[in-house]
Amino acid sequence: MYWFNKKHLEDLPDRFRARLINGLSGYKSANLIGTCDAKHQPNLAIVSSVVHLGANPALMGMVTRPTTVRRDTVNNIKEQHQFTINMVAESMVEKAHQTSAKYEEQVSEFSEVGLSVEWIDDFQAPCVSESPISIGLDLKEILPIELNGTEFIIGQIKWVRIREDVLQPDGSLELSQIRAAAVTGLDCYHVPSKGQRYHYAVPEHRARELPTQGNNDIHPPVNLKKFWAKP
Amino acid sequence: MYWFNKKHLEDLPDRFRARLINGLSGYKSANLIGTCDAKHQPNLAIVSSVVHLGANPALMGMVTRPTTVRRDTVNNIKEQHQFTINMVAESMVEKAHQTSAKYEEQVSEFSEVGLSVEWIDDFQAPCVSESPISIGLDLKEILPIELNGTEFIIGQIKWVRIREDVLQPDGSLELSQIRAAAVTGLDCYHVPSKGQRYHYAVPEHRARELPTQGNNDIHPPVNLKKFWAKP
Repeated sequence: MYWFNKKHLEDLPDRFRARLINGLSGYKSANLIGTCDAKHQPNLAIVSSVVHLGANPALMGMVTRPTTVRRDTVNNIKEQHQFTINMVAESMVEKAHQTSAKYEEQVSEFSEVGLSVEWIDDFQAPCVSESPISIGLDLKEILPIELNGTEFIIGQIKWVRIREDVLQPDGSLELSQIRAAAVTGLDCYHVPSKGQRYHYAVPEHRARELPTQGNNDIHPPVNLKKFWAKP
Repeated sequence: MYWFNKKHLEDLPDRFRARLINGLSGYKSANLIGTCDAKHQPNLAIVSSVVHLGANPALMGMVTRPTTVRRDTVNNIKEQHQFTINMVAESMVEKAHQTSAKYEEQVSEFSEVGLSVEWIDDFQAPCVSESPISIGLDLKEILPIELNGTEFIIGQIKWVRIREDVLQPDGSLELSQIRAAAVTGLDCYHVPSKGQRYHYAVPEHRARELPTQGNNDIHPPVNLKKFWAKP
């Protein structure tokens, strides 16, 4: 085992430490954040810090970069009060990673990296056409993290667009079906295969694997057909 | 494509909605949070919301459950001001999932599910012996999320213990080496294989894949041998 204490971590070369600490949390989500400024100039940025906050109300959060660097995404969200979260699939990984380059403020990362801008009705942020799951969110709260000048941005889901083959009859999403990507560290992309589901855990039993077809406990069954088209 | 708007989401059956919304963020980290109460009664809970906040100072965050349910982990952290984050490897998945069962307050999930408690010096939280990566953190801040009664807990890394085969010469972690698990939705566990790394992105080039041996830009090279033993 390697052991690092606080002093060891401080003494490491910057990039070594950045790679190490960025890797410690484990697998991370790979999402592209779509925003625009007052002139509807689109912006796109990859983030690996999107987290689930709650299902009802449907809330999601993400961590911003520190205030010491230019932050077009954050500024746009503060101005427009809306943003999109777009899941990165395997076919988008190279382009998604490229959005992390420091493009000039007036440059659209969509056109620079080759992803398609899509506007949904009067929603004040663009989404990524190629993405298998796109979510439109209203900004609800920004919590400053004064320890390092970052912020925790909280949005409430206003709409979701989901590719048909990913949504299962019980509401779960089969992300391996759309070859969704996961991130480790600063720069590594994985495409996991189908996982193993487990029953809801209770003290009386050991954890039990769910059959591959998932749960059948939705009564009445949800009629997904009525969600077929854009509302 | 399926489209859901805010009204559709509200109208869905509870468990269908929970599965759907929990799946939207993508792949999530799988970690066990180790804590104890004033009597050193250990507690262990699986969480999928651990996120990286910053490398210097080394900060990590996680989302708690809402205040409407009993929250032994949160109460212990508020009392002891320390906690551990322990990465879940494939061999631990079944036991890790089982920690989500509602055990009585005075029950140790370690012994109930069959994972080994380990105490590091005078650190006020136990870690999981079997875990390939364990991290000890000091509580730094708790940000209340009033929208749904959850909290965002921020800790600073005090020590890290890493299995030797996961740490690469450039500081990155090869999580597939330790068969680390990722979570999707409420109950699905994946074990991704080795990923593809990309060069640091610059506007002048398209994204380029890194050779499999990773980066060689650490000058001078970090002498990992000196971190071999527990400090």
